[in-house]
Amino acid sequence: MGLRNKRGEAENRISVEMGFRIKFMNNLMPEFLKLVPPSEALALLLRSLPDQVPVEESVDVLHATGRITAQEVRAPHALPSFPRSSVDGYAVHASDTFGVSDSIPGYLTIAGEVPMGTKPEFSIETGQAALIHTGGMLPQNADAVVMLEQTEIFRSGEISILRAVAPGENMILVGEDVQEGQVVIPCGFKVRPVEVGGCMALGITQLRVAKEPKIGIISSGDEVIPPEQEPGPGQVRDVNSHSLSALVTEAGGEPVLYGIVQDKLEVMKDIATKALSECQAVIITAGSSASARDMTAETIASLGAPGVLVHGVNIRPGKPTILAVCDGKAVIGLPGNPVSAMVVAGLFVVPSIRRLLGVKVEPPSKSCLARLTINIPSQAGREDWIAVKLIPSADRSDELEDWLADPIFAKSNLIFSLAAADGLVRIPADVTGLEAGKQVQVHLF
Amino acid sequence: MGLRNKRGEAENRISVEMGFRIKFMNNLMPEFLKLVPPSEALALLLRSLPDQVPVEESVDVLHATGRITAQEVRAPHALPSFPRSSVDGYAVHASDTFGVSDSIPGYLTIAGEVPMGTKPEFSIETGQAALIHTGGMLPQNADAVVMLEQTEIFRSGEISILRAVAPGENMILVGEDVQEGQVVIPCGFKVRPVEVGGCMALGITQLRVAKEPKIGIISSGDEVIPPEQEPGPGQVRDVNSHSLSALVTEAGGEPVLYGIVQDKLEVMKDIATKALSECQAVIITAGSSASARDMTAETIASLGAPGVLVHGVNIRPGKPTILAVCDGKAVIGLPGNPVSAMVVAGLFVVPSIRRLLGVKVEPPSKSCLARLTINIPSQAGREDWIAVKLIPSADRSDELEDWLADPIFAKSNLIFSLAAADGLVRIPADVTGLEAGKQVQVHLF
Repeated sequence: MGLRNKRGEAENRISVEMGFRIKFMNNLMPEFLKLVPPSEALALLLRSLPDQVPVEESVDVLHATGRITAQEVRAPHALPSFPRSSVDGYAVHASDTFGVSDSIPGYLTIAGEVPMGTKPEFSIETGQAALIHTGGMLPQNADAVVMLEQTEIFRSGEISILRAVAPGENMILVGEDVQEGQVVIPCGFKVRPVEVGGCMALGITQLRVAKEPKIGIISSGDEVIPPEQEPGPGQVRDVNSHSLSALVTEAGGEPVLYGIVQDKLEVMKDIATKALSECQAVIITAGSSASARDMTAETIASLGAPGVLVHGVNIRPGKPTILAVCDGKAVIGLPGNPVSAMVVAGLFVVPSIRRLLGVKVEPPSKSCLARLTINIPSQAGREDWIAVKLIPSADRSDELEDWLADPIFAKSNLIFSLAAADGLVRIPADVTGLEAGKQVQVHLF
Repeated sequence: MGLRNKRGEAENRISVEMGFRIKFMNNLMPEFLKLVPPSEALALLLRSLPDQVPVEESVDVLHATGRITAQEVRAPHALPSFPRSSVDGYAVHASDTFGVSDSIPGYLTIAGEVPMGTKPEFSIETGQAALIHTGGMLPQNADAVVMLEQTEIFRSGEISILRAVAPGENMILVGEDVQEGQVVIPCGFKVRPVEVGGCMALGITQLRVAKEPKIGIISSGDEVIPPEQEPGPGQVRDVNSHSLSALVTEAGGEPVLYGIVQDKLEVMKDIATKALSECQAVIITAGSSASARDMTAETIASLGAPGVLVHGVNIRPGKPTILAVCDGKAVIGLPGNPVSAMVVAGLFVVPSIRRLLGVKVEPPSKSCLARLTINIPSQAGREDWIAVKLIPSADRSDELEDWLADPIFAKSNLIFSLAAADGLVRIPADVTGLEAGKQVQVHLF
């Protein structure tokens, strides 16, 4: 409380004595210094959101990659739907081959060839075999396939079998891939190209998926102008609305931009209320000044119950993060600093979007392992996220990719320090630093 | 040659003696058994493709995430374009603070407050300070900022400074983030949300990116029918066209589907010639039968010079892969088996698309490390790719995600064996198996 109080008093006195416009909010101070560890903060946010079934829509399977299933998908029929050969060879009665070998071959009469794509019009009786191609339908009564390499033409219309096969060998039984009614894609699962193929095999051409949740994005700061404008002295272009918008899209949400709001409390409250009513979650990035940050906090606190859950996360960059739930929706206040905003959005906005999408199967994070090039110091008691550049190691073997992680130490308000980086390394709160050569997990952008 | 010759002779004799329709191609046999290691096969393919500049187009930066830059992007102006404070505090002459401390503070007169978003209308002379907010523009002559916490209001209009600052401290100099003319995004780089933000900071709203290359996809097999049709006995729906199409899109290409071609050589040659003329690369997936595979090979061999480079890759699944360059374009023949097709497409189609896009910065593969749950046997001399399911480990620490990789041993022609998997583990050719507990790299789908 000490520093903050000191600043508070200082600002108040200047404000009174010199008549400067300084906004200061005593009511937000207690939360501010209760810094919550990031994992606890996320758990608290997610726990405080109501359980909701995502809004569904139907999409063509061919455009479903990356979408989240809103219902489980069951097989309408068994796959394969007929017994298929898995090799090129001869369909036989397995029992006719028992005991045969290279030295004591068995002899079978060729009953015909199985055509591809239709049902063979003959059946296989004891003592008979039929030429069959990979994927061909087994003739009636055949229960195994002998590979072509294990047969020889004996004489016209007869083959010798050089190896015994067990019933079911070299073939795929009806339903061996999928049984009728079996769940082939669970609910809350991110569709990949392999699921697209799987649906096609079953004739499923439409999928019920979660509709992209609308995520409202509000920027603030009197110094912030739209990117297409030419900044005057003291002005900077709006970075966060657009990098966050791209991140929201990548995470499966639909960004809705509410523009840059002036540092006026009533204006911000109005816009935030509108965004909250139109969207399923709202992100507000504060201007960089203390007064703009405070205004963001006050705005969020006013939006609805239960309100602010966390004000201040024990992380660097990103300490001034605000997590709130207002009227059942997540409202996240991000630091104005573009680097902090992106790091914090990855930790809190992306999981909130996954929650809205009904993601049930949490995938491994996009990451790779790398060895640090140099020591990284870190303050104990605070989780640090360090941007690193990946360099292919000279030691990489044929078996494992081997990367070196080269930390980029830059002031966290430099936008292009992130652009030069490939990902972030997390240093847990109970660690005071990481040594050169240590293997670390790099969370890729 | 032995087995193949044996089969060849067997089929030829049946064909002659029994009059069955068997296609057999002696001319393809020599390549078939020269199995090339996958890494060599890829290197040969890429080396044989002509160096081409990708076709460019302009896109709005807001829709550029995931696209590949076709030109390097340079900063049109320095960033920041004015000296900014990186803290809340007082802008000062650094020299006025030299030697001060908690016990011997320095005293400065407050010249004013810097408003956000405009140029301060006063300058700072020796002995003066100005209240400044994070992101505010330094007044003329100020060369450092003292943090608010290191100041105290001394009396009306005066502050005491409790810590010395060096010139440039707590501020960002003009051009410290980016210099005018500096390359901020290299050519051939995949745009991420951070680059979107970076462009916005510089007022860059359009980017030159590589146009998605058209990738022709041809399916074959007399047993294959379109997914929307009801399969009769012996028929299967077309899986590969659609899973490959999704994979091509994900890799940044534009899939062009040429449908399912009958197992007739002239028909396939016509369609393949058309696809090659309309697209920048062509994928042909063979039907499952030997004759359909041979027909694919003959078709590819006929398309143009230099023609087939690799016929048979030393990999499982995926051995019957064909890699060719015809008239300067990659033509890739994939096995008909859906699992093999996806594994092989990941190894050869995706890098071919990256080449067409002009990707210069090869990113780390999307992968995670995991420990094997059980031993995996593997035949020495052949590279194996094993599908695994990832299970969060009970041992995971706060610092590293910890996954167990549970191999899915299924016949490789079962479509849903891949759908149940999270990724693939590669077993190099010189390894005879991997032991339970070994850390492996899982290449995620």
